[in-house]
Amino acid sequence: MPRYKLTIEYDGSQFLGWQVQESGLTVAGVLEDAVEKLSGARTKVSGAGRTDTGVHALGQVAHIDLAKDWETDTVRDGLNAHLRPHPVAILSAEKVADDFDARFSAIKRHYVYRILNRRADLALEKNRAWRVARPLDEKKMHEAAQHLVGNHDFTTFRAAECQAKSPVKTLDVLKVTRDGQEIRLEASARSFLHHQVRSIVGSLVQVGEGKWSPADMKRALEARDRAACGPVAPPDGLYLVRVDYAK
Amino acid sequence: MPRYKLTIEYDGSQFLGWQVQESGLTVAGVLEDAVEKLSGARTKVSGAGRTDTGVHALGQVAHIDLAKDWETDTVRDGLNAHLRPHPVAILSAEKVADDFDARFSAIKRHYVYRILNRRADLALEKNRAWRVARPLDEKKMHEAAQHLVGNHDFTTFRAAECQAKSPVKTLDVLKVTRDGQEIRLEASARSFLHHQVRSIVGSLVQVGEGKWSPADMKRALEARDRAACGPVAPPDGLYLVRVDYAK
Repeated sequence: MPRYKLTIEYDGSQFLGWQVQESGLTVAGVLEDAVEKLSGARTKVSGAGRTDTGVHALGQVAHIDLAKDWETDTVRDGLNAHLRPHPVAILSAEKVADDFDARFSAIKRHYVYRILNRRADLALEKNRAWRVARPLDEKKMHEAAQHLVGNHDFTTFRAAECQAKSPVKTLDVLKVTRDGQEIRLEASARSFLHHQVRSIVGSLVQVGEGKWSPADMKRALEARDRAACGPVAPPDGLYLVRVDYAK
Repeated sequence: MPRYKLTIEYDGSQFLGWQVQESGLTVAGVLEDAVEKLSGARTKVSGAGRTDTGVHALGQVAHIDLAKDWETDTVRDGLNAHLRPHPVAILSAEKVADDFDARFSAIKRHYVYRILNRRADLALEKNRAWRVARPLDEKKMHEAAQHLVGNHDFTTFRAAECQAKSPVKTLDVLKVTRDGQEIRLEASARSFLHHQVRSIVGSLVQVGEGKWSPADMKRALEARDRAACGPVAPPDGLYLVRVDYAK
């Protein structure tokens, strides 16, 4: 039973998140429908990251097992044909070993969060970025972010409903940069807690607006208390950009 | 009666073009509704470029006359509030002289056309770019484009319904560049014929796919015959980026 690795792009604003639910459109749900139309059999689609409602992907990874030995181009093009008109696209399909697991074999996940720092409402970037009207100091935000890099107890930046066994994670990269009106936050780690990036972004915006100092970010982390977190940023600006595997 | 210059962003995929029509949602129509809600009076909104259905703007310009002397920030924020939830945003409002005319005072218009040169359907960029699956040679496209720069009779690249008095225009810039899977075409001129950019892009894609040589582009131009044009590119990839004025 050959296993395939799929690299997937989607517009999260059109879905109730990645994971299949009892009702409502989900990314994994429309993917499973497309796999069934292509192969004739209902097959579980296992993803590397369970993105929430409204969160986008430029490079989500999933694996599927097919009964027949399909050409990888046929899998990619066939799934894309059956996915229409949903805003989900298979960027590539590759054959992988039976022990490849999109979720558990992943060694690093890369997210980007996009803020548009402007007064006017978003038109072309509606649902694709978070508009913050007050001027943000991206240098202070970057300085504050560096307090979170490394191995820490991230209880402050963890959703109440998070199912991870431990709140301790290693954040490898947390960078804040500006290009004109756009502020981009890049975050990389082996794995993240539920709402971790959005909780961090919401708190960094407090710093950017001058309500918190960069040192307040360190205090919030060390409080290990959800109540110390800033308002959680909306899902609109969050993108799962890439997932790395050992080989 | 003070005159205001508005700089406007919109997602053209949600409108039947710029110009007000007897029925259907148009950009100028929702702007006139917003101006009426703000000021209490129905006022004509005159734009620099009459973009077609599906064509976007990052910096369309329009002018309006208001009976009262409003603060420019109030005009911008008030219009944005009344424009919701339409994907149209006023980026700025400025007071201008009475003889400023968004259309007739313009000295240059800048368009960008975005092609995503990839096999997979578009998900996040759906309606925001043209997907071309066959590999395109952007260097040959750029070479072909140079035959069109300058003062020419653009009959070949003009829609049958074009209302311009003359098919002769001066194209100041026509550049084709690639960044990864994205090919961008930049076009600048004082004014354009109806469907001129989309007709040029469609023909350049013939060159990019190897069906035409760069010299065929010159022959198409010199034919001065609509039948010599390649298939017109879809509106999805076209953006009115900026309009320049003398001061």
